[in-house]
Amino acid sequence: MEHRLEAEVTLSGALPPNVPATEVVPRAASEAIAHTIGKRGEGRLVEWKLEGDLLRVVFESSGPRPHQALLAFVRRLGEELGRSARVGVRTFRATRYRTEFALDAEPKAPITLPMAHELTVVGKVATLSLIGLSEEGLRDNWMDRAVALVQEKVRRQAYEGKEQYWSQITASAPREHTFHADPTEEMLKRQWVRSGPTKGKWYLGPNAAHLMRTMERIAVEEVLRPLAFQEVVQPHHDSFDILLRTGHLEGLPGEFYYVAEPKTRDPAAWERFTDLVKITRQVPEDELARMVAPPSAVSCYAQCPTTYWWLSGRTLATDTLPLKIFDRAAVSNRYESGGRHGLERVDEFHRIEPVFLGAPEDLVALRERLLERYRHVFDDLLELEWRTAWVTPFYMQQSGKVGVEDSQTRVKGTIDFEAYLPYRGTREDSEWLEFQNLSIVGEKYTKAFSIKSQKGELWSGCTGIGLERWLTAFLAQKGLDAAGWPDGFRRYAGDLPTGVHFL
Amino acid sequence: MEHRLEAEVTLSGALPPNVPATEVVPRAASEAIAHTIGKRGEGRLVEWKLEGDLLRVVFESSGPRPHQALLAFVRRLGEELGRSARVGVRTFRATRYRTEFALDAEPKAPITLPMAHELTVVGKVATLSLIGLSEEGLRDNWMDRAVALVQEKVRRQAYEGKEQYWSQITASAPREHTFHADPTEEMLKRQWVRSGPTKGKWYLGPNAAHLMRTMERIAVEEVLRPLAFQEVVQPHHDSFDILLRTGHLEGLPGEFYYVAEPKTRDPAAWERFTDLVKITRQVPEDELARMVAPPSAVSCYAQCPTTYWWLSGRTLATDTLPLKIFDRAAVSNRYESGGRHGLERVDEFHRIEPVFLGAPEDLVALRERLLERYRHVFDDLLELEWRTAWVTPFYMQQSGKVGVEDSQTRVKGTIDFEAYLPYRGTREDSEWLEFQNLSIVGEKYTKAFSIKSQKGELWSGCTGIGLERWLTAFLAQKGLDAAGWPDGFRRYAGDLPTGVHFL
Repeated sequence: MEHRLEAEVTLSGALPPNVPATEVVPRAASEAIAHTIGKRGEGRLVEWKLEGDLLRVVFESSGPRPHQALLAFVRRLGEELGRSARVGVRTFRATRYRTEFALDAEPKAPITLPMAHELTVVGKVATLSLIGLSEEGLRDNWMDRAVALVQEKVRRQAYEGKEQYWSQITASAPREHTFHADPTEEMLKRQWVRSGPTKGKWYLGPNAAHLMRTMERIAVEEVLRPLAFQEVVQPHHDSFDILLRTGHLEGLPGEFYYVAEPKTRDPAAWERFTDLVKITRQVPEDELARMVAPPSAVSCYAQCPTTYWWLSGRTLATDTLPLKIFDRAAVSNRYESGGRHGLERVDEFHRIEPVFLGAPEDLVALRERLLERYRHVFDDLLELEWRTAWVTPFYMQQSGKVGVEDSQTRVKGTIDFEAYLPYRGTREDSEWLEFQNLSIVGEKYTKAFSIKSQKGELWSGCTGIGLERWLTAFLAQKGLDAAGWPDGFRRYAGDLPTGVHFL
Repeated sequence: MEHRLEAEVTLSGALPPNVPATEVVPRAASEAIAHTIGKRGEGRLVEWKLEGDLLRVVFESSGPRPHQALLAFVRRLGEELGRSARVGVRTFRATRYRTEFALDAEPKAPITLPMAHELTVVGKVATLSLIGLSEEGLRDNWMDRAVALVQEKVRRQAYEGKEQYWSQITASAPREHTFHADPTEEMLKRQWVRSGPTKGKWYLGPNAAHLMRTMERIAVEEVLRPLAFQEVVQPHHDSFDILLRTGHLEGLPGEFYYVAEPKTRDPAAWERFTDLVKITRQVPEDELARMVAPPSAVSCYAQCPTTYWWLSGRTLATDTLPLKIFDRAAVSNRYESGGRHGLERVDEFHRIEPVFLGAPEDLVALRERLLERYRHVFDDLLELEWRTAWVTPFYMQQSGKVGVEDSQTRVKGTIDFEAYLPYRGTREDSEWLEFQNLSIVGEKYTKAFSIKSQKGELWSGCTGIGLERWLTAFLAQKGLDAAGWPDGFRRYAGDLPTGVHFL
């Protein structure tokens, strides 16, 4: 059989002579197998041996893996021995747990796992043994997750270097561009912005701030209010617990800014630190390390996880659906490292995050209305050269979750909005700037956070509006002088601030 | 003499016979003393001894402390020996540096310092010896700062438990209050807010968010726009360097949320972490500690430091003064620990921070205009029961920096705005809520950040508007039902959102 689980069960004592292990052990095992594997596959207890208080058992199965059978066996054994012999089960573990499973492809490079194991691959069949798996690891299905991880790694190797799926949906007509400079460089020359005191963050002086707030007002008044989105104010720290539930913590840990609390607020405990700062005017790093707790949260990476948390465990009334809300309070951070560039790719940005929940057909209808409103803003007010495209990471393509249909028939997925940046080169050869997106994610997050609707399926989606990106796209095409701006935008911007005059 | 500095100077080699130390050392010392102490006090080289490449010297002085004399001595000695004997100074340190100084009071408890030292106090005279002070410590005036720290600690002991200075300036007429509940409790009952996923942070649903944004609009449209404040957008991480310059890092390290960067963004380096998360669905703390750098910044505590940084090293043109700006982008954090209560005292809050820079007389005039506008808002629109008071920490009182004058003649200082919260008890006996302040801080920050004006003195001030505090003060007096709200506020609030309906 393709799965084999060798385990040790430690009892609280040896069995008395009147309770024969030869009866108890096989019976508990066969009941456990019947209960957990049943007709879905085959299973058996292939070996067992009791020495004093130590019981060694070996389960094999085909079909379902046998760890659920082991858990059921241990529970039954404990109940029976408790009743008949006043002996309990102290603890148990798998000394070795082997399983066979199929891969999508042959691995191109060694596959690692962060625990004791052996992995061999023949063709597209893998055999994985976990060595010394704890009770927690057995109860918590680590084997299933380890198998999924090996499969994912092989798939990633197979698709490494492949582009994400990209399929154009719409494109505005080309426009004539008279401005060809990098807008951040121009703003620096005019002292509209200053590169911030920490990495990839900017201080926007009055002119730049006014333009970014103008973009915010356009988004709120032209897109969100007409579609009856309601504003919320969400915390700007995301807890680890939330990021575990959404999957962000496993996806992007190198892109977070981590948040750590002081171990205490007590000034007396901080006295050595403050004394050293007062005398040396430097940060005493060892003392700081001693006084600050390990990170427990991150500075907002995406806003929607905390909004799902807000609704977690709740049932939404039919008359509140589709629920349309947006947050613009949380400031977002991404550790961009080498990828930073101007205001286009930054470590800190300001995003309006609209989130919507409802029946699938209502969300598809809402997406169409959002697309209409965005089209109005980008065509009529900002007069941008822009396009939209379906985008999908390779692993979703692979799993057959998306096809190549048009937006009318397509249900789940992400649409990217991209703007041409003349300073980067020709419209055909240069990389356009993603300045906006729009996703319907199905039940992924409503399930993860146990959010229900009064009746029927509850899906969700979001459409992050990056204000620095809107601003950069606009300025890169229209320049920094109001004379070059379309009337629609000028009306919203009104008079520009007087700014600050430096000598 | 009251100061004595015993030092060791290590030369790059022994002196050749033709360069007699008996001439060089005393001459360099007397020149150094004349240059650094001169007529401001007395100084002499009281002992010296050269053995091989090790020169021991002892300086004593009265008046100025002798470490500047030692630094000048070492420089001259190095120059002279380099020229005459091709011998340089490798390094130097104080083996023992003793000083005598006066205290404001006799200490009530032992005084600690975070370095090797001896401290004795007789009456109000302290004698402090630092043992083994490095070259850096000598160059960087650690002795002067250690003396100031001892004096500060004695002063703090003397005033421990004393209230801060508080002197009422104005008070609105008492108002009749029909609402006596804790507004946060009421908002929780109506599901307008949810206590956040991390400590002391709140998620505001549509109704609460709408009311807080209404407060923001009132502040901007009734106070800031009429006085021609210009908006900026500032980063929400404060660098350690900035907080060292403002003094915040030595003042409040136990109240910060610290920010730490990943050591790398490279997914391969994070693979063990992500694998463990995928298999165990837990945060592997040791692995995280290995991958995250020590804290290098804090989540915004106060907004004004970063605004001063923005202007650092710049000279403001006369036509731009007084410069009036405000930020509302940075979200503020304070680790409140035991002090948390509802939306009144939180770990995360939203504050508009207006900052102003200009000539002292212009800032005093601006303060009067700000007070007028605030009065209009709190009396006419919000119809609050509120008062203002001068407040000053004890150590400013002690140093005689402030007296008890009225706001017309008073120049530097902080005015607190306080609102009566009926649910806390009677207006006479309960603690009122500080919901606003207004400070003129003189040259403290313009000097620290080298900000200059085209001509004359440049002072600064700020007036933080805490939106959660405005909201709580208002709701605590007027309740959560629009029927109880004054017309002025209702006009601004408009229609309330439909909110979210849970089953």
